[in-house]
Amino acid sequence: MKELQSYLGGAWVSGNGSPKEVVNPSTGETLATLRNAGSLAEAVSYARTVGGKNLRAMTLPQRGEMLKALAKLLHEHREELLELSVVSGGNTRGDAKFDVDGATGVLGAYAYLAKSLGEGPWISVSEPVEIMRGSKIKAQDVLVPRQGVAFHINAFNFPAWGMVGKLAVALLAGMPVVSKPGTSTVALAARIGEIIVDSKILPQGAFSLLVGSAGDLLDQVRGQDVIAFTGSADTGLRIRSHEVVMRSGARVNVEADSLNSVIVGPDVESGSELFDLVVRDCVTELTQKAGQKCTATRRILVPQSALESVREALLERLGDIAGRTGDPKQEGMRMGPLSTRSQLVDARKGIAALETHARRILGDPERTDFGGAEGYFLEPVLFEATAEAAKDPSSEFHQREVFGPVATLLPYDGTVETAAAIIAAGEGSLVSTLYTDDRGFAATAVAEMAPHLGRLVVASEKSAAASISPGCVFPVVVHGGPGRAGGGAELGGVTGLALYMQRTTIQGGGSQLARML
Amino acid sequence: MKELQSYLGGAWVSGNGSPKEVVNPSTGETLATLRNAGSLAEAVSYARTVGGKNLRAMTLPQRGEMLKALAKLLHEHREELLELSVVSGGNTRGDAKFDVDGATGVLGAYAYLAKSLGEGPWISVSEPVEIMRGSKIKAQDVLVPRQGVAFHINAFNFPAWGMVGKLAVALLAGMPVVSKPGTSTVALAARIGEIIVDSKILPQGAFSLLVGSAGDLLDQVRGQDVIAFTGSADTGLRIRSHEVVMRSGARVNVEADSLNSVIVGPDVESGSELFDLVVRDCVTELTQKAGQKCTATRRILVPQSALESVREALLERLGDIAGRTGDPKQEGMRMGPLSTRSQLVDARKGIAALETHARRILGDPERTDFGGAEGYFLEPVLFEATAEAAKDPSSEFHQREVFGPVATLLPYDGTVETAAAIIAAGEGSLVSTLYTDDRGFAATAVAEMAPHLGRLVVASEKSAAASISPGCVFPVVVHGGPGRAGGGAELGGVTGLALYMQRTTIQGGGSQLARML
Repeated sequence: MKELQSYLGGAWVSGNGSPKEVVNPSTGETLATLRNAGSLAEAVSYARTVGGKNLRAMTLPQRGEMLKALAKLLHEHREELLELSVVSGGNTRGDAKFDVDGATGVLGAYAYLAKSLGEGPWISVSEPVEIMRGSKIKAQDVLVPRQGVAFHINAFNFPAWGMVGKLAVALLAGMPVVSKPGTSTVALAARIGEIIVDSKILPQGAFSLLVGSAGDLLDQVRGQDVIAFTGSADTGLRIRSHEVVMRSGARVNVEADSLNSVIVGPDVESGSELFDLVVRDCVTELTQKAGQKCTATRRILVPQSALESVREALLERLGDIAGRTGDPKQEGMRMGPLSTRSQLVDARKGIAALETHARRILGDPERTDFGGAEGYFLEPVLFEATAEAAKDPSSEFHQREVFGPVATLLPYDGTVETAAAIIAAGEGSLVSTLYTDDRGFAATAVAEMAPHLGRLVVASEKSAAASISPGCVFPVVVHGGPGRAGGGAELGGVTGLALYMQRTTIQGGGSQLARML
Repeated sequence: MKELQSYLGGAWVSGNGSPKEVVNPSTGETLATLRNAGSLAEAVSYARTVGGKNLRAMTLPQRGEMLKALAKLLHEHREELLELSVVSGGNTRGDAKFDVDGATGVLGAYAYLAKSLGEGPWISVSEPVEIMRGSKIKAQDVLVPRQGVAFHINAFNFPAWGMVGKLAVALLAGMPVVSKPGTSTVALAARIGEIIVDSKILPQGAFSLLVGSAGDLLDQVRGQDVIAFTGSADTGLRIRSHEVVMRSGARVNVEADSLNSVIVGPDVESGSELFDLVVRDCVTELTQKAGQKCTATRRILVPQSALESVREALLERLGDIAGRTGDPKQEGMRMGPLSTRSQLVDARKGIAALETHARRILGDPERTDFGGAEGYFLEPVLFEATAEAAKDPSSEFHQREVFGPVATLLPYDGTVETAAAIIAAGEGSLVSTLYTDDRGFAATAVAEMAPHLGRLVVASEKSAAASISPGCVFPVVVHGGPGRAGGGAELGGVTGLALYMQRTTIQGGGSQLARML
């Protein structure tokens, strides 16, 4: 049995204590073991001193070239990584590509961005402004790398994209990374780490990998550090409120729970291309990665008039997927298992909680027969609420993210006001999608809904053909949302870099600034 | 005796419990009393619903006009406010102008900014980008007002600028404000509040004023709210770690302690205009507002070669001010008292702590004779460290902000590396100033020092005449710094608005976005 190791202080190290098992969630079969590492003080110090210095000695274009080389490297290992993703993550091949190609995509995009950022040790991010009207003294903002360590604490659902995506941005910004993948799917992250380390593309100290629990990682946090966390709101709160983190002044970025919504506009007619897009997107965002995506759709707002046709279409399509849920290694499977047994237990608990506020119209959460596979499967579960319950912010479906293929149909009266109030009841989401050709409805929706969203996708009949399902996160687009979603901002080109850099205003004589910046 | 009242839920209300006294810090004479308010649940709810709705119903230009009217209003009351500032804040007339005119200045600057932001309910803050190369689908970021309350918890040192500056930005952004001034100087803030309320320029619910303690204010915080706090790092930590605040997902902006530095470049020669600027700025930044400014200079880095001449010049100029420290109502006084008796006690404690790591070369912290005035006076105190102690991050002068006219001379070897290490030992500052004509030194300093600073002022012989002392904070320039300084960002034009707004990406067909945004 392979034992996964951590890469700390420039060496692969085994942990100590009793071994934990990492399993194939489709079969329960053990894939590898790992043991938790000891104190991380030295490893973090090594990253901070050696890694930070090495990265900051490189120019932005050099760091960009480094990312390009990593992208090429991962692409060369693509087949191996996809296979490992299927086995270790319970992913269909499509899910696996979403994760693995997503990782390569962020590397490529940031490598490309690097070409436009100049050769200097800083990035200018504003035009010079006169500090007072008529003054010769001007002020201009630059981004400089923070002189600390980037702690990446990632979720289990995207071991490749999560780890590599965060890594790409931090490295280009000039910060060394200590990456802690989610444990249940760490086999893929660890293999990617091995490929990266073996390639020697990165300078010493730029990348460390911690398998197993976080141990005393947060005790090592200092003021110039950055923590980027993706996972549950509860863990996010524990990180934010950690005594050392709190006192350090380190920057903390959280990307957490999110009750993402679909809003079907009052003008969408059954049979239109836009209607078909609604159904296609909903199905994708419920079942891709078995619904274990932070951008998955949880609440589907449908005007009373369209409720029957939307319900019918979803029942049909999701019912089909229920019949093709199982081990993704088996022919014809469209949806794999949840990631762990405890995830399945949690999802069933969540479903039971939703039952108190909505009617389950599809899916049996207790189903155990999935073509003989012994994994942590859950077939798609669809709820339907009453219009009254939909408007009540205390309804469970506004409060609880069930992390699986689970969503609730919420009928509404077709007005922006009601839809916006329902969106707001989720207390902050990563993304929602509005389907409409009504320009007035769309414009009012932006004003009313946007405060609760990190991203609002507006799909119309005209753009339907080119539309991409809302759960896709692009490197040039900011990822993060307010409130429950954590209030963070990652990716989005230079916005992503800003997380790992200090924005500092340089103030001085106008000609002096022009010469220097 | 006047009793100060709070303006809550659209009405002036007295508090309950025993009255506290607000005194003239130059004489100890009681100016007014106040009592703490009861539960703030209803008042905050009123602001949230009535105030938020009223403000969001206005266009940005309309909100800008409102700020312009407020600026005009305060200017009409300028003489009264300056006099009250002298009496209630222990300010010289110059200090009083700095605060009161600063307040009017922010209103004017944001009123002017409003003209450039369009008429829409959102502000576009990025160009549309293709989500993938060649895609018809684009993404563009907008700012929309957060649908909550802005809680402003201000410091005692700038009752006018602190309250009105924050208010101007939040109101233009479209958020209602509940403002809690620092208690010792609340007389001025309360009078300004009264002038604002009486004018009826603001819509119902847009402005509330809380005198006395914060009471259960933080228990009212919800996810769409924003807290902007200025004050000590300890109080900042208490706010951040407050259970309700933590769980709410509200945005918290902290502007706290800061050990700002002056770096005299190795090329600065005694007798040059730049040398004179160093001395002038140091004296201003030590003695303006009796050193009770978050941007005051605390650490003065001087190359060994220039140490004697800088020391001599400072001793002379500060010695002169020591002789003119007293009740600013008396003729010829250059520096007033600290704000409260407990501030004076704290400052003396801080001075005693600094004594353990540096030699006091000017000022007697126990001096009590200030021309017969009975206030909380402290004459300028200057320390000098050894070059060794200067490099030691554990030295008290790198760790402790003594909030009074107190600074330490730190000799260094004239290299950027040493200077940057000394800056870094302060663990994050709002502003530092570099005086040099050496372009290479300046450029390296930006790369090495900027990660620890919110703002770096670079002054050269050429720009010396136009230079403005670094403690001036301009509405178009971002105010805030990393680490110990709180990690916040206020003002800076649109950056300041962004604190009170949600940045949301709108994703859709390119022509659709172009039409809509």
